Amino acid sequence: MSTRAYAAQNAKSPLGPFTCKRRDPLATDVEIDILYCGVCHSDLHQARDEWHDFAPTAYPCVPGHEIVGRVSKVGKDVTKFKVGDLAAVGCMVDSCRTCSSCAKGLEQYCTSFPTLTYNGQDKISGGVTYGGYSERIVVDEAFSLKVSDKLNLAATAPLLCAGITTYSPLKHWGAGPGKKVGIVGLGGLGHMGVKFARALGAHVVLFTTSPGKIEDGKRLGAHEVVVSKNADEMKTHASSFDFVLDAVSAEHDINAYLSLLKLDGTLCLVGAPEKPLPVAAFNLLMPRRSFAGSGIGGIAETQEMLDFCAERGITSDVEVIPIQKINEAYDRLLKGDVKYRFVIDMASLKA
Amino acid sequence: MSTRAYAAQNAKSPLGPFTCKRRDPLATDVEIDILYCGVCHSDLHQARDEWHDFAPTAYPCVPGHEIVGRVSKVGKDVTKFKVGDLAAVGCMVDSCRTCSSCAKGLEQYCTSFPTLTYNGQDKISGGVTYGGYSERIVVDEAFSLKVSDKLNLAATAPLLCAGITTYSPLKHWGAGPGKKVGIVGLGGLGHMGVKFARALGAHVVLFTTSPGKIEDGKRLGAHEVVVSKNADEMKTHASSFDFVLDAVSAEHDINAYLSLLKLDGTLCLVGAPEKPLPVAAFNLLMPRRSFAGSGIGGIAETQEMLDFCAERGITSDVEVIPIQKINEAYDRLLKGDVKYRFVIDMASLKA
Repeated sequence: MSTRAYAAQNAKSPLGPFTCKRRDPLATDVEIDILYCGVCHSDLHQARDEWHDFAPTAYPCVPGHEIVGRVSKVGKDVTKFKVGDLAAVGCMVDSCRTCSSCAKGLEQYCTSFPTLTYNGQDKISGGVTYGGYSERIVVDEAFSLKVSDKLNLAATAPLLCAGITTYSPLKHWGAGPGKKVGIVGLGGLGHMGVKFARALGAHVVLFTTSPGKIEDGKRLGAHEVVVSKNADEMKTHASSFDFVLDAVSAEHDINAYLSLLKLDGTLCLVGAPEKPLPVAAFNLLMPRRSFAGSGIGGIAETQEMLDFCAERGITSDVEVIPIQKINEAYDRLLKGDVKYRFVIDMASLKA
Repeated sequence: MSTRAYAAQNAKSPLGPFTCKRRDPLATDVEIDILYCGVCHSDLHQARDEWHDFAPTAYPCVPGHEIVGRVSKVGKDVTKFKVGDLAAVGCMVDSCRTCSSCAKGLEQYCTSFPTLTYNGQDKISGGVTYGGYSERIVVDEAFSLKVSDKLNLAATAPLLCAGITTYSPLKHWGAGPGKKVGIVGLGGLGHMGVKFARALGAHVVLFTTSPGKIEDGKRLGAHEVVVSKNADEMKTHASSFDFVLDAVSAEHDINAYLSLLKLDGTLCLVGAPEKPLPVAAFNLLMPRRSFAGSGIGGIAETQEMLDFCAERGITSDVEVIPIQKINEAYDRLLKGDVKYRFVIDMASLKA
C-alpha cells in the first residue's frame, strides 16, 4: 500500500516528502496508523550516513523507531491486537527468533542481527525497511507492543527507544533501593535514566557539564546533581557508586566516571561515541570494576517497561513538532536545544 | 634485626647487596626464613620507578612478593603457625581490616589501600616495607599463608602473585565446566591462567602472538591455541567466549579480544599496560559485554588457591636462579626469555 513518509535522499539532503510501500498485513501482522514518532539522535546519524561502514545508509532513508499509533488492520492469526487498539513499535521489527539470544527474549542481541525498523533488510518484502516518519507501518504482532491509554501518547513514543535503552541496563545491573546510581548526561536518554533510576528506588546522582541543568535534573528526580567540570565535587564521589549509566554520545573522559565506581561496580555505556574511548587499566583493576555496554532491550522487557510506565505515570518530556519542522529539529538536536525529546505529530503528514 | 637483602639504590642502578632491618616479632607476628622468592614483572617496574606518579619508588627498594619460607619465630599470640612450619607471603602484609572490602575478605581492595609487601608504608616500624629479596621477613599471621609440603617449594612461590592474580578472576567470573575461557598471553601470569582454567573444568583457548608457543600452550593445558596475528583464526572464535582473561602488560588491541565475547561475556584485564587502551563503544553494546579488571586476591582466597594447588598438584613452571643473577634475569624478563617464572633460591644470599 502506498504510504506517505519523509525521507533523506542522500547524506547531504534535508528530509522531504516521499512515498514508500507497505505490504498488506500477513497472517500475524498488524497495520498501525502512526500517531506520533519520536526523534532519536540515531535518526540523524543514519539519515546523514554518519555511521559509515559500520551501518551504511541505504537511500531513500525513512527514519523513526519510536512509534505509537492505532491498529487499523490485523492479519487473520493475530491474537494480541484488534482494530482500534493502541500499539507501539520500537527499534526492531523482526529477528531470527531461534538463536540463543532470541530464546532468552533478548532479540536485540539476535546472533543473526535483528531486522531494524529502518535501514534494515526487509526479510518479507525485500529491500530496506522504512521507519516511523510515515503515516502507517505493518509489523508482525510479535514485535508490536501494547500501549496503555492512561499515558499521554506523544510523550509515550520516546519510551520505545530512549526509554527501553535506559530501563534495560538499570534493571540488569540491579538499580534499586540501597544502590547509588549515577546518570551521565541529561539529554533524551539521560532524562529517562534519571526518571527510571528514581522510580526503581535508587539514590540518583546526575552528572552534567551544564550548571544550567541542575534545577531540571532535580525536578526530573535526581537526588543530587554534580557539575562534572568541578573536579573537587567529582572527588567527593570517588569509589562510591554501584552503577553508572553513561548516556553521552560525544567524546568524553570515561576514566573520570570509572573512578566513581566502588568495588564490583559497573559503568554502562548506552551512547555510542564515534571514536574509541581510552581506558586506563588501573581504573579497572583497583578496585575490581567493569566497563560495559547495553543496546536497547528485548520485546518482553520493552512491554514490561511500558507497563511499568503506565503504572507509575512515567513518560518522556517532549516537544511536539509537525513533520515539516524535522530538519530544523535536527539542527536544534545537534545544539542540545531540546527538553528532552522531539516527537513528530504524524497528523501533520496528512495536512 | 639486621637482614641481608638485595636492593635497587635508584631507578638506574642494578640491584645489589643491602642490609635492611626487620622488627622483632610482635604478639601476632611470624618471622619467616625465606627459602624462595619469585620474580614478578612488577618487581622490575618498581625497582626502575616505571610507575611514575601512580606508585613512585622509595629507595633503597627491596622487591619481592612471591615469598615461601619456614617459620623461625612466632609471637606469643600466634595460633596459625609454629616454628618450623612452612609459610608464604604474597603482595600484602596488612590492611585496615575494618572497611567494607576487608570485611568481605577482599583486603586487596581495602578502601584505605593495603600495605604492600614492598614499597608500602610500614604502619608498625615506620618507613617503607622491604620485600622478599631478603633472608627473612616478619609479618602478622593474618597475612601469612599456610603452605603444603606436598609441592615443590620453588615452584610454589609464584602462586603468591601470578597464581592468585589469575585464580581469583577465573573463580569470580565462574570459569568451569561448560564455559569457554580464553587466556591472552603466555607468560608468568598467562601460564598459570591456562593451568587454573583447565583445572577448573573450562574449555581453554590460549591466544598468543608466538607460533613457537603452540606446543607449550597445549602441554600446559590449553585445548586450543590460537595465534592472534591470524585474523581468519580469530574470526572463527568471534562472539563465542564466556570469559577472557587478558594477562598482557604490553600495549595490544583490546577490541580484538572484546569481540570474542558472547552475550554477557567478560574480558578481565590482570596486566596493567602503561598507556590507556582505546575501547570501541559498539564492541561493548552489541551484544552486552563487559571489560573488567582484577587485582591479586584476598587472603582467604589465596589460602583457598594454595590448598587447591596442593590437592591438584599445580605449581608454576620455574627457572631457579641465585640472587646474584637477578639483574640478568630482569634483562631476560624484558625479552620474554623465561619459561615461565624466575624464582630466586635465597640460600644464595648467604653464600
